[in-house]
Amino acid sequence: MTTIRDVARQAGVSVATVSRVINGNSYVNKDTESRVREAIQVMDYEPNTVARGLASKKTGTIAVILPDIMNPFFSELARAVEDTARHHKFTVIFCNSDDQAPKEKLYIQVLQQRYIDGMIFASNTLDEEDIQTMRGHGISLVVLDRAPRRGNCSIIRSKNVEGAKTAVQHLLSLGCRKIAHIAGPEELITAQERKQGYLDTIRHLKGFDPALIVPGHFSISGGIGAAQALLEYHPDVDGIFAGNDLMAAGALKALHRMGVSVPEQVSLCGFDGVAIAEMTEPELTTVAQPIYEMGATAAKRLIGRIRGETEEPSVTELDVQLVERDSTKRRVRR
Amino acid sequence: MTTIRDVARQAGVSVATVSRVINGNSYVNKDTESRVREAIQVMDYEPNTVARGLASKKTGTIAVILPDIMNPFFSELARAVEDTARHHKFTVIFCNSDDQAPKEKLYIQVLQQRYIDGMIFASNTLDEEDIQTMRGHGISLVVLDRAPRRGNCSIIRSKNVEGAKTAVQHLLSLGCRKIAHIAGPEELITAQERKQGYLDTIRHLKGFDPALIVPGHFSISGGIGAAQALLEYHPDVDGIFAGNDLMAAGALKALHRMGVSVPEQVSLCGFDGVAIAEMTEPELTTVAQPIYEMGATAAKRLIGRIRGETEEPSVTELDVQLVERDSTKRRVRR
Repeated sequence: MTTIRDVARQAGVSVATVSRVINGNSYVNKDTESRVREAIQVMDYEPNTVARGLASKKTGTIAVILPDIMNPFFSELARAVEDTARHHKFTVIFCNSDDQAPKEKLYIQVLQQRYIDGMIFASNTLDEEDIQTMRGHGISLVVLDRAPRRGNCSIIRSKNVEGAKTAVQHLLSLGCRKIAHIAGPEELITAQERKQGYLDTIRHLKGFDPALIVPGHFSISGGIGAAQALLEYHPDVDGIFAGNDLMAAGALKALHRMGVSVPEQVSLCGFDGVAIAEMTEPELTTVAQPIYEMGATAAKRLIGRIRGETEEPSVTELDVQLVERDSTKRRVRR
Repeated sequence: MTTIRDVARQAGVSVATVSRVINGNSYVNKDTESRVREAIQVMDYEPNTVARGLASKKTGTIAVILPDIMNPFFSELARAVEDTARHHKFTVIFCNSDDQAPKEKLYIQVLQQRYIDGMIFASNTLDEEDIQTMRGHGISLVVLDRAPRRGNCSIIRSKNVEGAKTAVQHLLSLGCRKIAHIAGPEELITAQERKQGYLDTIRHLKGFDPALIVPGHFSISGGIGAAQALLEYHPDVDGIFAGNDLMAAGALKALHRMGVSVPEQVSLCGFDGVAIAEMTEPELTTVAQPIYEMGATAAKRLIGRIRGETEEPSVTELDVQLVERDSTKRRVRR
């Protein structure tokens, strides 16, 4: 393999001069520069990124920490991050945290030692200490959904409370009178906000019952269990708002198994807008987040900060949209 | 940030001695070693992985090149790779190639410059030249499915021909008499092999018609288009073997829209065994690959080669399994 020494010898200059040409961060005589560039080409020399990482403290690598790449929401997000990163000549490390704090901390520790330039954090916990440590290592940070109190980081989020309100209002407008909520994990801010939107819309209505909120763990199997429990104890439920599409798909499966027809007996609405919501029969009404846009925006924002182009940390709130499909339907008022 | 110089000063030794202790690749006096280790602890020094990468030519990073992380087959594979890598203290870079050769080549070029230790190649084209270049850069390689002729790399694959035969034999055993095939892209070896298994089983039977093979591009929308075309020109098709589950899910959707009932009128079988096959109604019969095991085996094999533990490149063929669900059903012989 050609080394920087070979290039220096070929060009008749010192290694330091070649390095200055490659890094472009100090003055080199024009003639000398063209001799070095020619030597680089002749010798087919590839300036090594690891070595440049040491010099410039930049490696062209960012990391994205997410709960689980198998969750279609996060695989779409990851795709958007990687597409955007590639466009800007960055490579992407991905890490599955399963929303477990010890795994997240371990990743942060390992990644600090690898001179990554920045991190997109789409997982659960990230405390002030982590943020300070990363700042100390010069690692830029963009977080999804969560807003650390004093962190010097940009935040990308979508309007969860508003979206949940839209979903429940949609079910009400169709004539649903007993609307249940399948909720995500209590420790996740997205789950909290969607539950909040449900409660804000429905709490003051006659017949509201907190027992209509059941946990579904943001998973298909959780949605199955939640719908089974709901219909067993509240057979007159006529609308369900699930906190994500995976739980809605699970609920649909459970309702089908129990012989409850959707949308005739129960109208069902999810949240996220992943492809799976179009694979079910009937297809699922959902509150769609602009998932790809969230990932692309996060990556753009991060790379901008790494390159020093973005001055201030910012908060971006993206709009969500109700997508009506066959799992919700206007019903005859009883 | 503490540097190796600070540690050397604290321990009263040279920087070279600290480096020898950290890398553990040459003799250091026991007393000196414990003084250095103590200094590392006292000073809270983190040996930098990039710097170590320069010295040892190892960075603890591997890359996985796959067509699209949003395809559930590849997101499960990627999850398995990352779980296994994390267990062995490696981080994982992922790259979406969309099965396009220029993108693949660009990734290979960029990754060579970043001192990755190894690569899992789950995308389409990889030629002898690429393999030689990577070998020249000391990058170990494990490929999925494809078998480069003289490449010094391990191969993980599953039994595609055998699996396709099992699928078509299953449809025949149920009484299907006109079995169509929705095929993946012709340039992909997995698609070729599954079509081969279909042809081997059915070519010699009465009424076989090559027009019953239609392209579905390994995608949901491709499956929709393929099923529409099939039923338009061959309304008496009573069995469909789709080359992957996404196309099977698309076909199911199209059949439903056309008012063709599955499995009563058409029995439908996919390939892969992804979660989406359980989300449809009816659930899809499929030939399941051990996807997670494929990813985990690829990562283990790669890391073994990086660490010099595995001597010879090897070929691993994993078994597939027919999973019978409601989309196939015994029919009355006509």
